[in-house]
Amino acid sequence: MAAFVTLDAVRAAAERIAPYVRRTPVLTARPKDDCELLCKAESLQATGAFKLRGAFSKLLALPADAPGVVAHSSGNHAQAVARAARVLGIRAVIVMPADAPPPKRERTEADGAEIVAVGPDSDERERVAATLAQGRGLVLVPPFDDPLVAAGQGTAALELLEETGALDRFYAPVSGGGLMAGCAVVVHGLSPAAEIVGVEPEDGNDTQLSLAAGERRKVPPPRTIADGLRVRTPGAGTWPVLKQHLARVELVSDRELEDAMRYALHELHLVLEPSGAASLAVALREGRGRCGVLLSGGNVDPTLLAAVAARERGRWTL
Amino acid sequence: MAAFVTLDAVRAAAERIAPYVRRTPVLTARPKDDCELLCKAESLQATGAFKLRGAFSKLLALPADAPGVVAHSSGNHAQAVARAARVLGIRAVIVMPADAPPPKRERTEADGAEIVAVGPDSDERERVAATLAQGRGLVLVPPFDDPLVAAGQGTAALELLEETGALDRFYAPVSGGGLMAGCAVVVHGLSPAAEIVGVEPEDGNDTQLSLAAGERRKVPPPRTIADGLRVRTPGAGTWPVLKQHLARVELVSDRELEDAMRYALHELHLVLEPSGAASLAVALREGRGRCGVLLSGGNVDPTLLAAVAARERGRWTL
Repeated sequence: MAAFVTLDAVRAAAERIAPYVRRTPVLTARPKDDCELLCKAESLQATGAFKLRGAFSKLLALPADAPGVVAHSSGNHAQAVARAARVLGIRAVIVMPADAPPPKRERTEADGAEIVAVGPDSDERERVAATLAQGRGLVLVPPFDDPLVAAGQGTAALELLEETGALDRFYAPVSGGGLMAGCAVVVHGLSPAAEIVGVEPEDGNDTQLSLAAGERRKVPPPRTIADGLRVRTPGAGTWPVLKQHLARVELVSDRELEDAMRYALHELHLVLEPSGAASLAVALREGRGRCGVLLSGGNVDPTLLAAVAARERGRWTL
Repeated sequence: MAAFVTLDAVRAAAERIAPYVRRTPVLTARPKDDCELLCKAESLQATGAFKLRGAFSKLLALPADAPGVVAHSSGNHAQAVARAARVLGIRAVIVMPADAPPPKRERTEADGAEIVAVGPDSDERERVAATLAQGRGLVLVPPFDDPLVAAGQGTAALELLEETGALDRFYAPVSGGGLMAGCAVVVHGLSPAAEIVGVEPEDGNDTQLSLAAGERRKVPPPRTIADGLRVRTPGAGTWPVLKQHLARVELVSDRELEDAMRYALHELHLVLEPSGAASLAVALREGRGRCGVLLSGGNVDPTLLAAVAARERGRWTL
């Protein structure tokens, strides 16, 4: 069986998407004397998250006669697919929960996507998307469990490693595993001795449990503030890659996520969403040596951002 | 008389400082259909502001036998000189008001600078710095009115124009004029038809008044929240450059500065200090065509940041 994602596949994706995505900056922080954090700021990617990489990677590889694409998401994946489709002149249908935050819906509509509103259950979203794909002949763009999507996400690590050279450790969040799978093959391809550390919220520790069990496990719906990390089980395709490359998974609490968001505001001058701060939270806690840290996104709810900025807690605030 | 600062001087500074400063990203925003803002995010520069460019430009040109440098500042210039001196192994003395915010003092001390605390009056700071320069043979690093400092600041515009090509307009804040002077010769050198617009706070409109009068004017101490834009008169050296290149100066209120900071948080995922958001405020108000926008810094007081994030006002918030 062909590998789900490889360094060569990521390199091919990087070439494909280069004209369409931002090369985001790598910002350095030194929270301790023996620790250098090399932070890849995908929060500054267009649409505010790494998801745009996977969307372009997939859409640029569509058959010429594809009548359009469909995706199900309430978050960054929706915006990414809508944006990539608009830029490439492809029709996009996004299946979104009817109670999604209005700004997210508006942004997706502003990029010209057709919104299909469904109930809040993620299984229903998936079913409706599959039905639309079949009925209208649209190509489904999965949020993570797709080789071209994962290869696209891995280009973030490729840019990071091109800039930093070998790393001692690499931290990235794990939800369905598309980002981590794409990044892991790059990190071990270019820096074989690096320890790859996945990060999950405390109540969304499906990948940690799966690694311990040696097979995929599923958790109840997580309630973490990290809304991008609520996938309940690793992807069928991403799982073997995660199993091969991850040294371990570390967990973060909501409080640690908020502290890391505050650190990013004051020390890096970056706005991160909770999911986007997860890798930073663990790197601040335990980082040693030269650590690559993938900051995955910045689309935070304004009310949460205000609360985080207002709460002066921990040693990172003044 | 030799020109205070030229495109060639900026190019020479760029070569000198390249190994020491970050090439900051240019982020694009489209607030209106007919307006593209190409934002140079100097808030992501090391030490959080463009000031590091001028500090390295000056310190890298010191005579080999200089026993050290002295600067007077309570803000970004202090941190920049301290950081550049530490990196280059040069002794630095910073004259700072005794009531400067403790974090600013701590950061400057963390970079190994010797702090000399004086009263809050800026004239006293200047006198003490001059006395130290004379008494200990230290080289004074002026915050703006120095050809090498201004040439260093201009490298921000050089990077911007290298990336964007010709611009319709260029917006940057004007305080003492070092940043604007360095940038203006670059913008008109590489994009001769660009309209160069300076931005000042409403009660710190010394450059606007000077342009109207045809000669330097001085204003009473401004009380704007833009603490980096409180210089009361253009520099003797920067003034002729400003007079030659500025099409006009636009003024911003504190409220507009806060709105622009909030726009940056939500739309660009950037933390800006009030001075750093000044050019953005005017570009959002009147920008048309391809506009270069210099976001000068991100070192904002956490209490102000929290207030700005909490206040949901204007059309940029959700």
